[in-house]
Amino acid sequence: MLGAQKMPIVLLTDFGNSDGYAGILRGVLAQWAPKTPVIDLAHEIPPYDVVQAGLILYQAYSFFPKGSIFVAVVDPGVGSARRPLLVKTQDYYFIGPDNGLFNLALFEQKIEKIIELTNPDYFLKKVSSTFHGRDIFAPVAAHLSMGTPLQHFGPELSHIQKLAEFTPEEKKGAILGRILSIDRFGNLITNLRRAYLLERFPNLAFQVTVKNKTLRDLKTHYAQGEKKKPFLVFGSSNLLEIAVNQGSAAGLLQLKRKDTLRVRGR
Amino acid sequence: MLGAQKMPIVLLTDFGNSDGYAGILRGVLAQWAPKTPVIDLAHEIPPYDVVQAGLILYQAYSFFPKGSIFVAVVDPGVGSARRPLLVKTQDYYFIGPDNGLFNLALFEQKIEKIIELTNPDYFLKKVSSTFHGRDIFAPVAAHLSMGTPLQHFGPELSHIQKLAEFTPEEKKGAILGRILSIDRFGNLITNLRRAYLLERFPNLAFQVTVKNKTLRDLKTHYAQGEKKKPFLVFGSSNLLEIAVNQGSAAGLLQLKRKDTLRVRGR
Amino acid sequence: MLGAQKMPIVLLTDFGNSDGYAGILRGVLAQWAPKTPVIDLAHEIPPYDVVQAGLILYQAYSFFPKGSIFVAVVDPGVGSARRPLLVKTQDYYFIGPDNGLFNLALFEQKIEKIIELTNPDYFLKKVSSTFHGRDIFAPVAAHLSMGTPLQHFGPELSHIQKLAEFTPEEKKGAILGRILSIDRFGNLITNLRRAYLLERFPNLAFQVTVKNKTLRDLKTHYAQGEKKKPFLVFGSSNLLEIAVNQGSAAGLLQLKRKDTLRVRGR
Repeated sequence: MLGAQKMPIVLLTDFGNSDGYAGILRGVLAQWAPKTPVIDLAHEIPPYDVVQAGLILYQAYSFFPKGSIFVAVVDPGVGSARRPLLVKTQDYYFIGPDNGLFNLALFEQKIEKIIELTNPDYFLKKVSSTFHGRDIFAPVAAHLSMGTPLQHFGPELSHIQKLAEFTPEEKKGAILGRILSIDRFGNLITNLRRAYLLERFPNLAFQVTVKNKTLRDLKTHYAQGEKKKPFLVFGSSNLLEIAVNQGSAAGLLQLKRKDTLRVRGR
Repeated sequence: MLGAQKMPIVLLTDFGNSDGYAGILRGVLAQWAPKTPVIDLAHEIPPYDVVQAGLILYQAYSFFPKGSIFVAVVDPGVGSARRPLLVKTQDYYFIGPDNGLFNLALFEQKIEKIIELTNPDYFLKKVSSTFHGRDIFAPVAAHLSMGTPLQHFGPELSHIQKLAEFTPEEKKGAILGRILSIDRFGNLITNLRRAYLLERFPNLAFQVTVKNKTLRDLKTHYAQGEKKKPFLVFGSSNLLEIAVNQGSAAGLLQLKRKDTLRVRGR
Repeated sequence: MLGAQKMPIVLLTDFGNSDGYAGILRGVLAQWAPKTPVIDLAHEIPPYDVVQAGLILYQAYSFFPKGSIFVAVVDPGVGSARRPLLVKTQDYYFIGPDNGLFNLALFEQKIEKIIELTNPDYFLKKVSSTFHGRDIFAPVAAHLSMGTPLQHFGPELSHIQKLAEFTPEEKKGAILGRILSIDRFGNLITNLRRAYLLERFPNLAFQVTVKNKTLRDLKTHYAQGEKKKPFLVFGSSNLLEIAVNQGSAAGLLQLKRKDTLRVRGR
């Protein structure tokens, strides 16, 4: 691998840019993997918002080179029993806490191996109870980038934690989806992936009920909608959205994050 | 060019740092031009504020190495008929929407070629109607950095859009300038460049009228002004400013962005 | 040094990310030291807050590779008589204004040389009175990275400025410490370093009086404290903190930044 281009390490955190925490991650990486490019995906995720982080990772990961190592640290359970993970898929590596942050991205990637990070040889010497980004995740990413084989980092696991928000619930023939996020136009982004709906409803013949209102109208572009009339559309990341042409669906329907929607065939 | 240092790609956007949009640009560049350094100029431009972006670009561009490729995406007209551009000047490349953002910088640079970006071979496979930074501008910058000749990207154009804010109006012997921006000290930054005024007024013998007040006093340093008395001064980027020593000219004169000022000889 | 890896230049400023100032520093560095990696430690330090910047630098510097060049520009005295500095220690270089910002970090590092930056050969051609980051500090860092010997930058100095906030006062047998910062949990971070207290109080047998309340209880972990009962603890950077388990010490004790505390033996 002499002279080979190192694949980037990509950082996603809720550390913000007014403290030195994101900078310290970059310092650790510069120390342990000096030739590996480091790219900031984002550091201004709202504190502890695992869902928002998982959604941003899902929308972004496929635009990075194959072989990239994602280090995602939004970690409300740091210091508790939640496990530190490394997931290898057919195209990428994902390193971070086992709290469901990677779920959405992993729906699209074939998982090849899940490793629990237990070997302190690849951590900083003194591991704090509050800053695993610095003490565990960044050092492991650096060692992985420098060629340490996967099995050195710890034992293999059979599965990872699931986050309820990212997994539609199936109940008595209906599917219960959720609103994950509201974008700045007021479009409601749900956890219903196109591939998931296509599997269950041939030709995407489904309807969505939310707050006693049933929507059947699946457009292909935002601009096709009539004014003040909410409709369904798959956004650029193939998640189902509820939108209103030139208006706010969130405002019109009085819906917010975590609200559920019911999907049935028609 | 084997082993040659790649000139940087420099990013300027209004994407902010809480979503993944700026990170996705960096991902696309890492994928298509893995050895090219990528530098963030700024990503916290107020949304859609083409004037502020153009001013920041103008103040910054000459500090970057010759050959740098600027990708500036503040793009209220994305999805409409505005053209995507590549401008080559004697020293730099500028890539972005044809909305006047580059005007101020280009007053100082000799334009060698203007290309309309029309060739989809150099775009991402699927071009969205909302995110040309990712789908058009970053991929074109990457291909340019990798050596694709200019003429491959599309047809040559004869001129670019002008933004009224960046171009003083000449009317019946008077010149109408505008306030582009107010800095944090309350200094009023205008669109009147030193070179422009010097061409029209030998020895810079001009006066400025604004809100029935005429200013004749052209200082060379801020500290020369008397207290509470507004004066004229060329700022560090050679744009005419109205300032008050140790005070706010904006507050004292009750002026705001886009207000006009009248310039005459004396 | 042909082919040798350049040590990074690390940036810490209060420039924010909405103007182009931090980007311009990166441009100057790309122009003068094109192969040197540049790392952002943080740019959202509150404006002019030298204490917060010094604390962040202290918490972060040791995680960067030895040989790193720190450029720290929080500079309320720019344009006045404060001297521009380069400090070489056993492990690092520190470049910035002589305003005490480096004090805390330098308590832990052996100072080998202090240079006053006076030689304009290594500055930008035209030095402004308002932007020494661009005109002096970044160009000097770039030249240092390219191999310019220390003595070329200016004369040697015997000492640097001290910032009162970073140095406990010793007065009639008592030590007066200060609260430097309050973290987001309400923990009060003081200027009392573990090594400093250990030198003065064998076995750390000291007590702290603040607002007529005397604290003797030195815990090793935050979780050891009883609810609503403030205690002492050394944080991850070995500064003494006043904390409350699952509560805010700042709120409970009604203390704020710059408040003093009295330390005595027991």
